[in-house]
Amino acid sequence: MIYVATIRVLPKAEVRDPQGEAIRGALRSLGLAVSDVRTGKEIVVTFEAADEPAARDAVGIMGTELLANPVIEDYAYELKEGAPA
Amino acid sequence: MIYVATIRVLPKAEVRDPQGEAIRGALRSLGLAVSDVRTGKEIVVTFEAADEPAARDAVGIMGTELLANPVIEDYAYELKEGAPA
Repeated sequence: MIYVATIRVLPKAEVRDPQGEAIRGALRSLGLAVSDVRTGKEIVVTFEAADEPAARDAVGIMGTELLANPVIEDYAYELKEGAPA
Repeated sequence: MIYVATIRVLPKAEVRDPQGEAIRGALRSLGLAVSDVRTGKEIVVTFEAADEPAARDAVGIMGTELLANPVIEDYAYELKEGAPA
């Protein structure tokens, strides 16, 4: 089966996010009443797995082994069957 | 009203994504049958707006003026009322 996982990696709430702070300043200078900005990564992975439990195991490996740094980042994902939109 | 917009910025399908290609190679070397990886940014913005149409206008300004490069990137967003989770 083909699966598509959308993995979102965000810095933990207690970790500073300098890129988000810079964006906040830039958005404020556009005249928007922005109070907080957090930035993260989104990784859309198309992969093959035998079934859904195997696919979830694979996404767990992707998240913890490569995509997120568990010390400072959290990740969440959505898993869909089939080709990407 | 406080709104929270989750803005996702992804490279257009016809644009090369070298970071995604690198991640694909790394995931394959972990033994995963990955066929495609696309990487993007996720920006979670907490801001104030008078009502929902005004909030959507503000997100449009964020997307086109600052966060996405419309030549090579597409963006999509979700808008919620209230404080971030």
